[in-house]
Amino acid sequence: MERIIIDMDEVMADTMGAMMSWYRENFGEDLEYSKMIGSWMPGIPEKHREEARRKLYSKGFFRHLPVMDDCVDVMNELNKKYEVYIVSAATEFPNSLKDKLEWLEEHFPFLTWRQLVLCGDKKMIAGDYMIDDHTRNLVHFTGKPYLYSTIMNAHEDGYERVKNWTEIAGIFL
Amino acid sequence: MERIIIDMDEVMADTMGAMMSWYRENFGEDLEYSKMIGSWMPGIPEKHREEARRKLYSKGFFRHLPVMDDCVDVMNELNKKYEVYIVSAATEFPNSLKDKLEWLEEHFPFLTWRQLVLCGDKKMIAGDYMIDDHTRNLVHFTGKPYLYSTIMNAHEDGYERVKNWTEIAGIFL
Repeated sequence: MERIIIDMDEVMADTMGAMMSWYRENFGEDLEYSKMIGSWMPGIPEKHREEARRKLYSKGFFRHLPVMDDCVDVMNELNKKYEVYIVSAATEFPNSLKDKLEWLEEHFPFLTWRQLVLCGDKKMIAGDYMIDDHTRNLVHFTGKPYLYSTIMNAHEDGYERVKNWTEIAGIFL
Repeated sequence: MERIIIDMDEVMADTMGAMMSWYRENFGEDLEYSKMIGSWMPGIPEKHREEARRKLYSKGFFRHLPVMDDCVDVMNELNKKYEVYIVSAATEFPNSLKDKLEWLEEHFPFLTWRQLVLCGDKKMIAGDYMIDDHTRNLVHFTGKPYLYSTIMNAHEDGYERVKNWTEIAGIFL
């Protein structure tokens, strides 16, 4: 069975969507998408950047993220045909670890704790395919990389892209 | 730089030592070491096995484990000469995740969150060397495996063994 390595934030989980909603509710304005090159942070007005950072470190933020459209159904099919691992750069955020495991178990009951990897960087991860929204995770990968399109990576080139889970199904199923 | 993958429980951390101490304090007797083939569990008298299992799942158990002799000093030197990743099969125990990160940060301040990997199985981990006490983790590894000797793996053969951190220093430094 071929192995697919799939990222969690911005690929399975709409992490930026949750941050945008939180920001709008708390500060009554929108984030500055055009400044989000490589990272959200430049798109968060400086006056509230420290609060946004604390939100990322807080318990519960990663527990209640929306799931990307079609992700559950496509993942269910991928899981029958491939060896699937969900690999998330998470150890920077100590309170996210258990939250991410519980989020996965809630929304993807057909996946198990054996398929989750919580790490810092992804240099030591091996597989046949990797789907990730950060080129820094794809650059060391020895299998075939796919860049999942987000506002943050719109400026990157040199990678085959997927823009949603329907496209992922089209490639892998 | 060559990459070393190092296991946490029974290699860096004396997890069984902590379980033995807890058992002795609570039940006034020792575990049955001669029955620990492949796992602790058969060495825990059946009448208390469920409580021992709950202890493993409880918050704090993995936060306060003793560090193996010489591990800190040898790791500090390894970390200068190699790309070191600490890879722990931990997602089975949701409460262990943050505990393991904090334990690592307390005892090994020269390592960072970027070097910790918390996973279920270790099939997708790539590197030049792996030191682990479970042959199920070593068997898929494409680099050179070293079996860290414990009571539980005494029956295994077919692997080069290390029995303590002085021996690890002798091989790698």
